[in-house]
Parts: sequence; C-alpha cells; structure tokens
Amino acid sequence: MDSPFVERLGRAVEAGGAPACAGLDPRLPALPERVAPGAPPAERVFAFYHEVLPVIARHLPAVKPNIAFFEAFGSAGFAAYERTCKLAREHGLLVVGDIKRGDIGSTAEAYARVHLDLADAVTLHPYLGKDSNEPFLARCRREGKGVFILVRTSNPGSATLQDLRTEKGQTVAEVVARAVDRWGEDMADEYGFSSVGAVVGATQATQLASLRAAMPRAWLLIPGVGAQGGRVEDLAPAFDGRGLGGLVNQSRGVMECFLPSDPNWRDAVEQAVATFAAQVRAVAVPNS
Amino acid sequence: MDSPFVERLGRAVEAGGAPACAGLDPRLPALPERVAPGAPPAERVFAFYHEVLPVIARHLPAVKPNIAFFEAFGSAGFAAYERTCKLAREHGLLVVGDIKRGDIGSTAEAYARVHLDLADAVTLHPYLGKDSNEPFLARCRREGKGVFILVRTSNPGSATLQDLRTEKGQTVAEVVARAVDRWGEDMADEYGFSSVGAVVGATQATQLASLRAAMPRAWLLIPGVGAQGGRVEDLAPAFDGRGLGGLVNQSRGVMECFLPSDPNWRDAVEQAVATFAAQVRAVAVPNS
Repeated sequence: MDSPFVERLGRAVEAGGAPACAGLDPRLPALPERVAPGAPPAERVFAFYHEVLPVIARHLPAVKPNIAFFEAFGSAGFAAYERTCKLAREHGLLVVGDIKRGDIGSTAEAYARVHLDLADAVTLHPYLGKDSNEPFLARCRREGKGVFILVRTSNPGSATLQDLRTEKGQTVAEVVARAVDRWGEDMADEYGFSSVGAVVGATQATQLASLRAAMPRAWLLIPGVGAQGGRVEDLAPAFDGRGLGGLVNQSRGVMECFLPSDPNWRDAVEQAVATFAAQVRAVAVPNS
Repeated sequence: MDSPFVERLGRAVEAGGAPACAGLDPRLPALPERVAPGAPPAERVFAFYHEVLPVIARHLPAVKPNIAFFEAFGSAGFAAYERTCKLAREHGLLVVGDIKRGDIGSTAEAYARVHLDLADAVTLHPYLGKDSNEPFLARCRREGKGVFILVRTSNPGSATLQDLRTEKGQTVAEVVARAVDRWGEDMADEYGFSSVGAVVGATQATQLASLRAAMPRAWLLIPGVGAQGGRVEDLAPAFDGRGLGGLVNQSRGVMECFLPSDPNWRDAVEQAVATFAAQVRAVAVPNS
C-alpha cells in the first residue's frame, strides 16, 4: 500500500512544511466575481478550487473540504466535491474529507467505501460506538487511510454532552479520547502516530493538553482558528517536539480573505495561506 | 405553512394507517434483475423506486431513504436520492431523510437548507449539542419540518457511549432524551406531539419505556426490526393509546423480500409491506 496518510503528513512536516490545512467551505457570495461568472453554482465552486488548489499546494500539505457546503448545491455540488478531492490529490495535497458521518453496519460500509475512495482521511461521529466506525478503521489498517473522530468540538453548545461528567469522573470527551487511543493502538506509523486521530476545536485550548495526554498517538485535527475565535498561539500542547500531532485548519480566514470584486484575489489567498502556514509552523516547531 | 410533519403522521394513523415506514437502502445485488437491466447503477436504483413507491404508498404513510446507500454511487447516487425523495412526496408519502448529519454553525445551516428541502424530516446526531441542530429546529418551528435525534441506536457498539452513566446517575442516552424533550417543548401539534423526535433502536426494547417517559412528546423513529433482530411485538411501550408516538421502520425485510430473478417481485413487496403495516398497526392500536 501507499504510505499511510499520517506518515505522509509527518514527512511533509519533517521536510519543513506546516502541520496545517486549508478548509474548503464553498459559499457563493464569497467567490471571486471573475471566476466563471454566470456558470451554474457548482461549476463556479469547482472553477474556484481549480484556480486556488495549486496556490494552496505551494504552502500547505493538506486541504479539508467540508462536504456540507458542496451538498448544499445538491447532486451537482456532490459532483464538485468529487472533482475537488480528485484535483487536490493530483496536486499532491492530502485530502481530509470533512464529512462527519456516523451510522451502523452496512450503512457505515457504504459511507466508508465512497468517502475513503474520494479522500485520504475523513471525520466521523463517535456517538454510535466502535462498530459504526469499524468499516473506516478497516481501511485505515489495510490501506493507510485516516480518520478523525469528533472528540471536543469548537462550538458553544458542545459542552452540553462532551463536558458531561461520568460516574467515574471523566468527561464524555475524555471517554471518547481514550477510545480513539485504543482504536489506533495497532496502527502506528514510522513516527509513532496512529491512523486514528481526533477532532479537538481550537476554542477548547484549555482541554488540549489533557486530551493530548489521553490519546498520545493521535493526530488532532484542530478547526476553529480565526472566524470562530481560536488562536494558533494557544495550540502548542497539540504538538510533540517535532511539529507532529496537530493539524490546524483555517477556512474563511484564508479562503475568504479578499473582496469578491478584487482582481488580485489570488495574491491575497497566496499571502494568507503562506502567513497561516508560517504561524502554525512557528508554534508547532518553535526551534526551527 | 403546511400541517407539520408530525401532524400529518398523526392524521394518517388516525385514519387507520400504520405508524410505520419502509426503509430505502438501495443495494445493487438486491434489485430485481428485470428493472432497467444494463442501466448505470444509480439509474437502476431510481427505476426500482419508481416502481415500488406507488406500492408502498398503498400501505404505509412514510418512507425512510438512507442517503448513505445513495451516496455510495457518488453524485449520480445523490441525484437518485433527490429524485426518490421528490417522487415519494408526489405519491403522498412522508419522507424521513436518514442522513444522520451533525455539524456546527454555518455548516449545519448548509445541511439544513438542502436536506429539509428534499425531505419532510431528517435524522441528526446529538454529539455537538443544540446549536448544531438549531438550523434544523428553526425549520421545524417555521415550516413544520421534523427531526429525529439519535438517542439510543440499534447496533451492538452503541452501549459504549450511550449507556455510559453520568455522575448524576442517568445514562448519556437519557440525557439526550431529556434534551430532545426540551428542544421540542414549544412545537406541539394537535395531538400533543412535538416536531422533535428521537431515534431509538428496536433492539433496545428494554429501554423503550424509560426513554418514552423521558420524552413523552417525542415521536420515536424505531429502526432495527427484522434483519437486525428487533421484534415489532416488543414495541408497544412506544405508543400512546391512539397508536401515535412510534414510527417503526423496516428496510431489508420489506424491500429485499424477493429473489432478484423473481418476475413477481412486485407482488412480494406488496405482500411484505402490507403484512408489516398490519403487524405494526396491531401493536400500536391493539383495540382497533
């Protein structure tokens, strides 16, 4: 098989890259006016990514397309998601499909088949337990794919369930974190990280160190930087000394950093992505 | 606005219908060989539902298409899902989109927009808390749409998280059930049921009475009958005296009840659906 997803991520960071990804959350009003004006919405979305993926690939190892924003355009949007994932991988980018699926048995198999064909890794819900994630885990073991289980999310309402304390004194998020650790114990890459990662929001920086300790082998996918209020400089506890262990995502801050009417929008994206990469790199590998 | 989804469900049962739905989980090897042979997979799927939806509509008030099995065919499958939902509604069927989505803020809004346009109600994950479900709840309030929050699922691994006991002695599933009850308290229909329902697996029959008590206003969507081992006769606690409160789903047992080579597959489906409807009706309204 190809090198595991996590190992390719590790190599990119070892080679001087930033452990960071650009979130692709297409919103029509934020697209550059000059890109495929008048084309159907989903065509405009793909045309935009056709132009920016090479820009992103010069500065970051990965992208995180959020399928919800593609599904919002119906089946044409789903097709744009497929094409965007494919093109990103052709540009050498790792693709984390932000699908947040979670279902049982044969349903989970159906999701795992299509979504891990499209992407190198995907995000998953934990509420249904291990068997619901098993078809995805099987592809991690067999083909080096990756998963990120939702552990502690960045939104205000997340505390209700995720911070709920169990009779043993742990929070629900900590229980899920320990499950993530167990599920990944037979899948270590050459850096000691497993193919089973976790989502921990950047707005939960105070919990980052304890969640990191509960799942030392897991890559943490960290959304919520920028528009949601999370700060890159608070994320140091996610990383080991080598800059591995945290994959920081930014969406609007890098992909909507220009006015739609701006003819120089490509330069704005390039600058925003480069700045974001440097910021994350500085926190992840402070002595480099 | 139209009558709320739950009210239309209530009326169907009041008129003598069964509180039950057929699960649409398209699997190619299970399709009748004679339906659109040689057509692309997603076309065959839609052709099948084009033939069976009128049959279902004669015996049941609702269908539950599981989008995973459509997504498995990529964007063409997503298009088949869109067409199947539309056609089902044209046949007067209520459509519960089994999408099991759960994401935050603007992402949840994107999902709510497209999926509650396609369906009358959808299934949702609870792990991210109320704000993740709010864009869906807003459409319940405003347009009478419905949601079913995953509370206690039918799969073996569900116990890990859902039966976890909190420091206050409740299980996580009970905590979610109480949230479902609160979220729906301002949305009662003429029968006293709210637009915020819950998913409780038929294999969890021992928890049915206590979960019903924790959320007395909620319709319970009950999958897991048949292939997964749940039994209709164990589901009595879901129903009030009028046959309302439980929406029992069966997928494989009714939609894959024939050999693909059987030329009389339509008759087999008609008989299976009618039998299933009568079974559920007998448990839901024992004195009718």
